[in-house]
Amino acid sequence: MKTLFIGGIKSGKSHNAENYIKKLSGAKPVYLATTEFIDDEMQERIQQHQQQRADDFITVEEAINLKEKIALQEGAVLVECLSMWINNMLYHEKTYEEMEAEIATVMELKQDIVFVVNDVSCGIIPDNKLARQFVDISGKLSQMVAQKCDEVYHVVAGISTKIK
Amino acid sequence: MKTLFIGGIKSGKSHNAENYIKKLSGAKPVYLATTEFIDDEMQERIQQHQQQRADDFITVEEAINLKEKIALQEGAVLVECLSMWINNMLYHEKTYEEMEAEIATVMELKQDIVFVVNDVSCGIIPDNKLARQFVDISGKLSQMVAQKCDEVYHVVAGISTKIK
Amino acid sequence: MKTLFIGGIKSGKSHNAENYIKKLSGAKPVYLATTEFIDDEMQERIQQHQQQRADDFITVEEAINLKEKIALQEGAVLVECLSMWINNMLYHEKTYEEMEAEIATVMELKQDIVFVVNDVSCGIIPDNKLARQFVDISGKLSQMVAQKCDEVYHVVAGISTKIK
Repeated sequence: MKTLFIGGIKSGKSHNAENYIKKLSGAKPVYLATTEFIDDEMQERIQQHQQQRADDFITVEEAINLKEKIALQEGAVLVECLSMWINNMLYHEKTYEEMEAEIATVMELKQDIVFVVNDVSCGIIPDNKLARQFVDISGKLSQMVAQKCDEVYHVVAGISTKIK
Repeated sequence: MKTLFIGGIKSGKSHNAENYIKKLSGAKPVYLATTEFIDDEMQERIQQHQQQRADDFITVEEAINLKEKIALQEGAVLVECLSMWINNMLYHEKTYEEMEAEIATVMELKQDIVFVVNDVSCGIIPDNKLARQFVDISGKLSQMVAQKCDEVYHVVAGISTKIK
Repeated sequence: MKTLFIGGIKSGKSHNAENYIKKLSGAKPVYLATTEFIDDEMQERIQQHQQQRADDFITVEEAINLKEKIALQEGAVLVECLSMWINNMLYHEKTYEEMEAEIATVMELKQDIVFVVNDVSCGIIPDNKLARQFVDISGKLSQMVAQKCDEVYHVVAGISTKIK
């Protein structure tokens, strides 16, 4: 079972995805944090979140090699989030094709996986070239993931609507 | 009965909310304008809108104290809009917690209330710190309001879809 | 039959619209490209796309006079896309009222027409005045088109949801 939650900034996509994965049967679910670049303030927030999640999730971190990391897990895996991973991949000068290839192998894993992605598609086209590139890649990968997922949820104002 | 209409800029969210509240039974509905900062051009547009609404609504204005103002009304109240109110609250250096507390008391009022909020969540994360703060608060309050509302409508291209 | 597909950047709106129009009965559908301003890189991408479409579509180009061009076609017409056309109209200093008038006459044509529009409404209000104007016009025209269409589809992550 593969599932995608897509929604805007502070739309409640993560909260909905966490509730969703907790209801999947089997071993304790895994929270795969894709965060790579963190300052002190962020570090503190991450630790807070991690403590809040401790009862419900096993937290692991991986910024780049999703497939390798997910393959090691027993429980269902929450990828939090794809947008940050795209960001990391761009920083490490990976191409869109490399991202697509990585996601394709992830999709073949036997694990239940729940993806969270930030919808950045509905503003005006950014002036900034890097931002434009990010928006394009985010959109194309979201399409690809959604196509391969069994279920897709669109989250608006904390409310999750099943669109596939 | 509490209801939220959420949609982007010129998505038709206000038009849909106005039609919705006119169908609620009881006294003439109240249009609560949250606008605070207005230049001459805006003043003119506001007066035009007010005249257009005169047959259908009683118009009142309140930039900050929503609960106090709504408690005084007989009819159902259309809060137009929450986004402008967040803006006013930020200008007056109110914290997110104060906004949440105000909305929590509003939600306990017996009146029928229809909220309109601008969905600003689906662009790229803004460079500007104040804009980022606005986007975060807007998203979090929208989630809170939606959670407490009986009905929530997502508006796209003038078409309103019930998502709760 | 008139239909609108609305979605963000790289949301898959065009792909969905193309699949949709191919299933309409009658003569080979027409791909009406509204692109006007193109550099060499864009020219190349356009030609690539055109070749990919050759088996399925007749491609015609028109940046401004939609009604005139669509009236000449036999098959169903895919307007790809309204956002580019708005852009062209603004460049040629056409007013919103002129755009609305043009779309109104287009809507009276007997042809089946499928419109694609980019949803730019859910970011923060742009600083740039021209961008703000574009967002406003895009929203108002999308509402108008959606109101007159028989069917409207909202596209997120490649998944098209019928909202009217």
